[in-house]
Amino acid sequence: MPAKREFRGVRFLLFDIDDTLFPSSEFAKKARKNAIAAMLSAGLPADANSVSAALREIICKKGANNQEHFDLLCKKLKCKNPAKIIASAIRAYHDTKRQIAPYPRVSSLLAKLRKRGFVLCVATEGIAKKQWDKLIRLGLQDSFDSVFISEELGLNKSPNFYLRICRALGAKPSTCAMIGNHPVLDVLSSRKAGMVAIRVLKGKHQKEKCNSDFAVRNISEVGKLPILK
Amino acid sequence: MPAKREFRGVRFLLFDIDDTLFPSSEFAKKARKNAIAAMLSAGLPADANSVSAALREIICKKGANNQEHFDLLCKKLKCKNPAKIIASAIRAYHDTKRQIAPYPRVSSLLAKLRKRGFVLCVATEGIAKKQWDKLIRLGLQDSFDSVFISEELGLNKSPNFYLRICRALGAKPSTCAMIGNHPVLDVLSSRKAGMVAIRVLKGKHQKEKCNSDFAVRNISEVGKLPILK
Repeated sequence: MPAKREFRGVRFLLFDIDDTLFPSSEFAKKARKNAIAAMLSAGLPADANSVSAALREIICKKGANNQEHFDLLCKKLKCKNPAKIIASAIRAYHDTKRQIAPYPRVSSLLAKLRKRGFVLCVATEGIAKKQWDKLIRLGLQDSFDSVFISEELGLNKSPNFYLRICRALGAKPSTCAMIGNHPVLDVLSSRKAGMVAIRVLKGKHQKEKCNSDFAVRNISEVGKLPILK
Repeated sequence: MPAKREFRGVRFLLFDIDDTLFPSSEFAKKARKNAIAAMLSAGLPADANSVSAALREIICKKGANNQEHFDLLCKKLKCKNPAKIIASAIRAYHDTKRQIAPYPRVSSLLAKLRKRGFVLCVATEGIAKKQWDKLIRLGLQDSFDSVFISEELGLNKSPNFYLRICRALGAKPSTCAMIGNHPVLDVLSSRKAGMVAIRVLKGKHQKEKCNSDFAVRNISEVGKLPILK
């Protein structure tokens, strides 16, 4: 257990997007479920459980950002008429993802924090266009002063990623707080860079142990933390 | 002017999708207009007319199916923060294209023709997944007995494309009618293959001259043609 750290003068608040501003994992799960249902109803001769297992395997192997999950799935399942099945899946997937919404009270929290004088930034891992698409769909594209995305910085979320953001902001790390759900990318790395790490206990990593400076069950509680008063 | 051709025994009806089953050109135009509005409102420092001209040039050069229109546009306009602008454009574009709907009375026309004993097929030029996506969004994915797409056949719309379809259907060309809007791809090529060509006067080619066997202003009139009685 590291020594208790004391912070004064936090001025910059950095937010992750996925499972921090909105329930990304839940939506992804729902979108995949709906995509599989659409494939079966378009004539894929298989059962939901085996399709689901095959899809999980593909995502695990190719990564979540690969654009060909459903193409690979049809290939794996030796599907005849793959174009119809893939088009049905993509449609159902995107129709679900279109419905994304922020966690409760996120917009008002951001507005309140800005009013209190904090500089608000997004600091997120991912493909720039995809992350902007999420911000726009969440209606939060104008809620931040700056948006930092790993692809654009050419750096994955590491201490250097956070130090680069500090340079861009002209800020000392100790005046920055990173708010995110991921134990390594959001919490450990920002702490190593000298920032305050506020963990949001959401998403699939929420049960993992990790040393953060603060932890909240819901992002709306961030506004009540004493260091942000 | 060729000699008047006589047809008896048409049993197979082939339909194009774009500007035949739905107003594809109108939607594309509207989608591009909305995308440009979204880019400007996301902060692109330009005026709608010059952005529109630049986009037209890119589409003309790269083809309508290129996936990077907006990326190229931002590059051309030397846009800072392109990811936000591109994501805004893509969102607006797809939100408009999502709203596609068939021309009036298309569904009931297809149902009626099927009931009269015709075999209904789609015969379309394009990328298989994209064409299926349109059929699904139009709600017409189950209205046809077969779907033939140039990408899957490995043949662009030419007389051979239509002869290949005849082989697949076990049909003589003279028993097939092709219904589409394009003077060359739909009308001339199917005629050369020996089919009946029914021209739908829609889309940007509607004022071009071409010899079809029949011409209709609206697809719903196809049901009233004497050869389909």
